[in-house]
Amino acid sequence: MVTVDTRIANLRKEMKARNIAAYVVPTSDFHNSEYVGDHFKAREFITGFTGSAGCAVITMEEANLWTDGRYFLQAAEQLKNSSVILRKMGEEGVPTIPEYLKSVLKEKDILGFDGRVIDADTGNTFAKIVEEKNGALKVDEDLINLIWEDRPALSKEPVWILDEKYSGQSTKDKLSAVREEMKKKGASLHLLTSLYDISWLLNVRGNDIACVPVVLSYLALSQEECIWFVQEEALNEEVLEYLSANGITTRPYNDFYDFVDAINSSEVVLLNKGNANYRTNAGLSKDVKVINAVEPTTLMKAVKNETELKNNIQAHIKDGIAVTKFIYWLKKNIGKIPMTEISVSDYLESLRAKQDGFLGISFDTISGYAAHGAIVHYEATPETDIPLEPRSFLLVDSGGHYLEGTTDITRTIALGKLTEKEIEMYTRCMRSHMNLLNARFLHGCSGINLDILARAPFWEIGMDYNHGTGHGVGYVLNVHEGPNAFRWRTSQGRHEDSTLEAGMITTDEPGIYLEGEFGIRLENELVCRKGEKNEYGQFMYFEPITYVPFDLDAIDKNQMTDREVGYLNAYHKMVYEVLAPHFEGEELAWLKEATRTI
Amino acid sequence: MVTVDTRIANLRKEMKARNIAAYVVPTSDFHNSEYVGDHFKAREFITGFTGSAGCAVITMEEANLWTDGRYFLQAAEQLKNSSVILRKMGEEGVPTIPEYLKSVLKEKDILGFDGRVIDADTGNTFAKIVEEKNGALKVDEDLINLIWEDRPALSKEPVWILDEKYSGQSTKDKLSAVREEMKKKGASLHLLTSLYDISWLLNVRGNDIACVPVVLSYLALSQEECIWFVQEEALNEEVLEYLSANGITTRPYNDFYDFVDAINSSEVVLLNKGNANYRTNAGLSKDVKVINAVEPTTLMKAVKNETELKNNIQAHIKDGIAVTKFIYWLKKNIGKIPMTEISVSDYLESLRAKQDGFLGISFDTISGYAAHGAIVHYEATPETDIPLEPRSFLLVDSGGHYLEGTTDITRTIALGKLTEKEIEMYTRCMRSHMNLLNARFLHGCSGINLDILARAPFWEIGMDYNHGTGHGVGYVLNVHEGPNAFRWRTSQGRHEDSTLEAGMITTDEPGIYLEGEFGIRLENELVCRKGEKNEYGQFMYFEPITYVPFDLDAIDKNQMTDREVGYLNAYHKMVYEVLAPHFEGEELAWLKEATRTI
Repeated sequence: MVTVDTRIANLRKEMKARNIAAYVVPTSDFHNSEYVGDHFKAREFITGFTGSAGCAVITMEEANLWTDGRYFLQAAEQLKNSSVILRKMGEEGVPTIPEYLKSVLKEKDILGFDGRVIDADTGNTFAKIVEEKNGALKVDEDLINLIWEDRPALSKEPVWILDEKYSGQSTKDKLSAVREEMKKKGASLHLLTSLYDISWLLNVRGNDIACVPVVLSYLALSQEECIWFVQEEALNEEVLEYLSANGITTRPYNDFYDFVDAINSSEVVLLNKGNANYRTNAGLSKDVKVINAVEPTTLMKAVKNETELKNNIQAHIKDGIAVTKFIYWLKKNIGKIPMTEISVSDYLESLRAKQDGFLGISFDTISGYAAHGAIVHYEATPETDIPLEPRSFLLVDSGGHYLEGTTDITRTIALGKLTEKEIEMYTRCMRSHMNLLNARFLHGCSGINLDILARAPFWEIGMDYNHGTGHGVGYVLNVHEGPNAFRWRTSQGRHEDSTLEAGMITTDEPGIYLEGEFGIRLENELVCRKGEKNEYGQFMYFEPITYVPFDLDAIDKNQMTDREVGYLNAYHKMVYEVLAPHFEGEELAWLKEATRTI
Repeated sequence: MVTVDTRIANLRKEMKARNIAAYVVPTSDFHNSEYVGDHFKAREFITGFTGSAGCAVITMEEANLWTDGRYFLQAAEQLKNSSVILRKMGEEGVPTIPEYLKSVLKEKDILGFDGRVIDADTGNTFAKIVEEKNGALKVDEDLINLIWEDRPALSKEPVWILDEKYSGQSTKDKLSAVREEMKKKGASLHLLTSLYDISWLLNVRGNDIACVPVVLSYLALSQEECIWFVQEEALNEEVLEYLSANGITTRPYNDFYDFVDAINSSEVVLLNKGNANYRTNAGLSKDVKVINAVEPTTLMKAVKNETELKNNIQAHIKDGIAVTKFIYWLKKNIGKIPMTEISVSDYLESLRAKQDGFLGISFDTISGYAAHGAIVHYEATPETDIPLEPRSFLLVDSGGHYLEGTTDITRTIALGKLTEKEIEMYTRCMRSHMNLLNARFLHGCSGINLDILARAPFWEIGMDYNHGTGHGVGYVLNVHEGPNAFRWRTSQGRHEDSTLEAGMITTDEPGIYLEGEFGIRLENELVCRKGEKNEYGQFMYFEPITYVPFDLDAIDKNQMTDREVGYLNAYHKMVYEVLAPHFEGEELAWLKEATRTI
């Protein structure tokens, strides 16, 4: 096998031939997708680091990898046999990528990257850096492609239609709603590069990127035309007829940039520069007026319609059956049969697979036992996998795609006797979860206003969890979806401070992570609903749509207020009522006990 | 006395002579002050409406007054004998002032106002409206001045120096801190028109506007010069020497606009357009570069220094003694001696006046009995004043200026037997207050994150209070001060979403208002303090610096959690410890009972 350093040497040859001083290789496809297909794992190819987040910058002297705290240990391990330098993001004294480029690029230097895998805003930041040095960008070539001999081909899995009984809104309706928004904004043409938004808009699904059933494609929408740039081999007769019936024409996937480059200067183009790639934005003639705004589809798909909500509940019942049976099985068999983090995760997937309409898991399962639970984005590998014992916690964060919707649930399960500290922390996390779930608030609030309800039980003792309290969830789409979220502050460039609207689904997942000891996270999905409307305004509340017991073995009721205990009992009563018809015998008896009033 | 309609007729003559189609008369001085001196009560003069907020627009056909919900009743009453039309702000179908102007102004019409009493941002909005109609603005004359024969002169009360033992920071230090900020922003000249900011910066005080001890003046600051535009008759020898020692030169108050008009185009001017008046901004040559930003003094004065904090506690002890004695007196004498809203308010002021260093009240006392308590900004007048009876609540929101600081406190006092509803609402409000007071949070939070802690007890039963939960408090300055506040959403143009920094003082004043029944508001001032710093970050908490018992007669302990009861008991214990040394005999015995553990 070719070593990482050989690959880097090969890349430097190509850079030298083009007089490129530094070349940036991020973790991204052409669509700013969170998960990418194998074809796009260029950063992994050039550094050997397999984590989901990271960015490489190669110069003639140095090869660098930036990644975040979740991956410091893993990256150090995977980089140790290469010359790649680990840059620990956020640590004191570690430069950001722009800072690094400013310091290493010399007068008139050329900075290179594939303009399709960097978003327009980031690309513009890079452009400014080289401009200040009277240098230039070179963004029209994917140098990795030249040196990656056995690179996997672009995925072109068959496209399928998400029937209106699942989507709840016809493609024609969706197209005309977006066209209305374009008119309001004064845009004549809308370029859509986000795979989630395109799939939602056209009511199509595919299988081109990991864990998200979407189709590699671009879209150009005007009042008259809707052009879908897609790998045409992925379309069967049924899909072609459907597209034609909806006034959608197709062109080859790779023709998109020719189309962009030829856009007439009389057009007013609606484009989200924080999401579209640099190549798309740079291809537009300077005379074309660009309206830089979040895609209208973003808010539309976040507000689930009644059909989606009804279906989603069905998906969550199926998912709840699988996860509840899993917990029952774990509790019954722990210490009796061999189990490891990976084996139980596989067993959970097999239970989901038994459910009608299951399409696949919605993200890589996090199955972390004891101290591994404290690693927020832990993904067990054969090297890290450990056996489960009848003590401490197993944290399982998992989800599935069903025809009726996408799920995301975390349960932390007591595998045996717990310590006082484990019980105290679990109870606190339960209070966090329940206080947010039971929030009543006026319309107009965003997650920024509500986040403290979940954090307070930890903040009051000087602790915190270093992640958002919750994120929006797509419908047979990405399990992480904006613009709704529960966070106390917004991250740069993230649009997650949307007003909470009726029909939005957001996760409620506070946690606590004690390094070297254990981790706890408790996650349900919540639908935002309209409550009373009176002289004070429109009140809102949440309905939980995740139906799985929390672990009463880990609760100390005395550490909760009566109100909090009431919240938990009400949730468990609902879980029992929803699940009981699907259980029998010993499992039903266990469910009854697991959801008992405390 | 000349009637309002005669005044309006006189104004129209002057408008006609200048070909002005509409003339705007707001409630403002030249400095965007919240409270204005008598000289500036032009809107009151032209409409007869005496409320603190409102704006008149006079055309040849119509005279209009816009005011908000607090004043609908009062305005209707005061306008009824004139031709002035009441425009109820925020009501459905009522145009905003810009909308109104758009609809009534015709092609080429001239819109007039005194450019000194309208802020630059609002003035620019008006400029755009007339521009669209190919009309013009006329802003260089105060037409009201021409028709107001017995207009009060500009106030020029003596200026006095706030000694460093009160201010805690020398004028030299403050000037150099602001000059540093100017350098950072690349500004060569800073125009300061806010009276609060000027008084803070120069460590001077005066008495030129109601309830705020400030000096009518403007300031121009460069790295070399500090020019104070002030009515020089207000300065005595001591002040002149002090100014000279600090490198501050003076020029006449009215020379400011000559100075502005002559600013060289090479200057880069730092100016807050949301605060500076339109005339100032319009006077700047088009070639002058303006940096439109909040004044550096705004954040500096909000973060109180250690001396100010220590002094402030002393001011609050004095204030606490006065208010506590007031409550004792009320409870003892209600039903025995005649009392009215105004008479008790006067008595409270007399108790404050007995305290050393008392300078005056910090805003007009709100003393609202029973149903009057439900009128949020109620100010008792001889016409509305009612006798107090031994039942229901008296709501008293009041404050004082002392040499050691400014106070703002609200107590709602049970004058006799309460109804169940009164007790339930008071208890809920107490929970609101205590839950915010006892917040623990990470540095980086603003009031936006915390507000729900106070609102939750009302939101959970579908109720709300239609005001912010709290505001910043000045130091011997305006009792309402930004940029810190507790609000769940920011208002247009208000900068009140600042991160809560150690040393900021913010009020905690949730309330509930039941029209025709009663009103409750419970207000303390809280100092933001640094707590533990650990791997999760810098934790923050609040220290209450208001020392007056809440009314245990209005509390139903069973409606509070143990934690909330604990908060209240801890607060009362502290109040007793602070006040007891200043009380004796019957009053001390009462204090002990009023602050007992429940």
